[in-house]
Amino acid sequence: MADLAGWGGGAPHADEDALMRALADIVGGEAHGASGGIGDDAALIDPDLIWTVDAQVDGVHFRRDLSAPGDVGWKALAVSISDCAAMGAAPVGALVSLVIADGDVTSLEPIYAGLADCARTYGCPVVGGDVARGPGLVLSVSVLGRAAVPPPGRATARPGDVVAVTGDLGASAAGLAALTDPALRDLPGAADCMDRHRRPRPRLAEGARLAPQVHAMMDVSDGLATDLPRIARRSGVALEVDLDALPVGDAVRAVATARGIAAGAFAATGGEDYELVVALDPAAVADCGVPLTVIGEVVAGPGEVRWSGAGADAALRGWDHLAR
Amino acid sequence: MADLAGWGGGAPHADEDALMRALADIVGGEAHGASGGIGDDAALIDPDLIWTVDAQVDGVHFRRDLSAPGDVGWKALAVSISDCAAMGAAPVGALVSLVIADGDVTSLEPIYAGLADCARTYGCPVVGGDVARGPGLVLSVSVLGRAAVPPPGRATARPGDVVAVTGDLGASAAGLAALTDPALRDLPGAADCMDRHRRPRPRLAEGARLAPQVHAMMDVSDGLATDLPRIARRSGVALEVDLDALPVGDAVRAVATARGIAAGAFAATGGEDYELVVALDPAAVADCGVPLTVIGEVVAGPGEVRWSGAGADAALRGWDHLAR
Repeated sequence: MADLAGWGGGAPHADEDALMRALADIVGGEAHGASGGIGDDAALIDPDLIWTVDAQVDGVHFRRDLSAPGDVGWKALAVSISDCAAMGAAPVGALVSLVIADGDVTSLEPIYAGLADCARTYGCPVVGGDVARGPGLVLSVSVLGRAAVPPPGRATARPGDVVAVTGDLGASAAGLAALTDPALRDLPGAADCMDRHRRPRPRLAEGARLAPQVHAMMDVSDGLATDLPRIARRSGVALEVDLDALPVGDAVRAVATARGIAAGAFAATGGEDYELVVALDPAAVADCGVPLTVIGEVVAGPGEVRWSGAGADAALRGWDHLAR
Repeated sequence: MADLAGWGGGAPHADEDALMRALADIVGGEAHGASGGIGDDAALIDPDLIWTVDAQVDGVHFRRDLSAPGDVGWKALAVSISDCAAMGAAPVGALVSLVIADGDVTSLEPIYAGLADCARTYGCPVVGGDVARGPGLVLSVSVLGRAAVPPPGRATARPGDVVAVTGDLGASAAGLAALTDPALRDLPGAADCMDRHRRPRPRLAEGARLAPQVHAMMDVSDGLATDLPRIARRSGVALEVDLDALPVGDAVRAVATARGIAAGAFAATGGEDYELVVALDPAAVADCGVPLTVIGEVVAGPGEVRWSGAGADAALRGWDHLAR
């Protein structure tokens, strides 16, 4: 039974992106015929069919004392619908794979009620699923979507483009801060931020409208500080981004101040915004039909992000000292 | 924050099927536009696109002392490919959602090596994935497939049909028994059974060939004792099945004898066979191009299975006393 060995037999990796690249190499990645697969927001199956999966893990992606079961169900679907938005696709349907501890099975119905809310809101029917017993609650939601035009992806930002975002940034992080710190909960706008943390609103309509007009697009799930370097590396260009130009609401500004962090740096590192960030021709910004805020420029150079504005010094040190 | 309540707010359910029906009701199930969705082997998206998901959980679906990481990767993909087979579809690709504990990350590469083996063997490329940290190892694999003809499903078995299966049954259960009991490991054929437990072989070619010729088809994942009642209920017919007619290999017969169980009853309750069970016109059996063993008949009657042969008395008591 010598072949039962091997648990823990792989190599350690520098970070999540390096790990995903190593795993993609093992399964053959793009060589297997998939384009825009591992490393993008979603895989492209047919010219127009996109496919994505995301997992939400109890205690890692959500906390039961901060989110109701319906919120957890909503968010598990919303994050995959946001991947659809990033590909400019309309959702076709969702499959839910749910692992739950024996004693927790009666939480399933309220979780599914939140899933159903999100499914109705974004026209993404839950077409099937699988429930298994396990060590803790894991919701893994896969979504299929259809794109009217080829998804812009992350690899084709061009020098001369501007970098722009939909909506505003940092609200989810500010909401999480308010949920965990009662002193922040009475700030004007805090309730809206808490709602945006618990029930994020993917930019589905905006993604579909932007897709034919932009050169690169992704959703801001991990925060610009993590997500923008992915566009820079994949496109082989430098992004010059001004933290002071980031669209930030008053509540986010107040929470950042309370935390002693510049608002732009707080918003760039917070994550879970589910806004869209795009690279597009500057002439297209005004007439693209989606309100955008320009936050930087694409220039020739190595695949990196050059931050300016308040908090940029922290970026140079890798954001490590910032509260996440 | 009153709306944070609700964990554990749902109702308990009689069994897994009842729970899945309750969840399907919440998300709208077939009313949402999906056909053949919750309750079938896979959802039908387009007329020809099928979509399935299955999760493998550490300590529930596999044990590290009985399976190498490569076996776990293989099986996680193979069980979803088996759903494709049950729908008569050819796999298009797989998405992998993996949850793993921090200290276990170096197991990912050997797991992925097994996934890649299975992907190559069945022509089902892994086109993307998601890795998250969590309380334990969960592999949730979603597979898309394309069907050349409408999948037969479970709801159209007809009185006058015979019930038949591909291959033989009980090998995976006998393999598991041998893996856990060294006294059984030297039985002739035990090594093959252990291999079939750890690396099941979905009946992809057989499913594609049978689909246009049968009235109902599903894969035997939970064991005939659990799976056949699903066809009976969905089709609204009675299935008269002879346990003595089940195709059972010598090793399975020996393990069943060692356990003091009739071989047919052992094979009907073992599970994880990933053979196909079909209902078809008796005249089609000989010429369908797939070796089949006829094990029973479809008759008019309520949606139930009527067992005969050695061990059938146990079936009437619900199989509860049988070792699983």
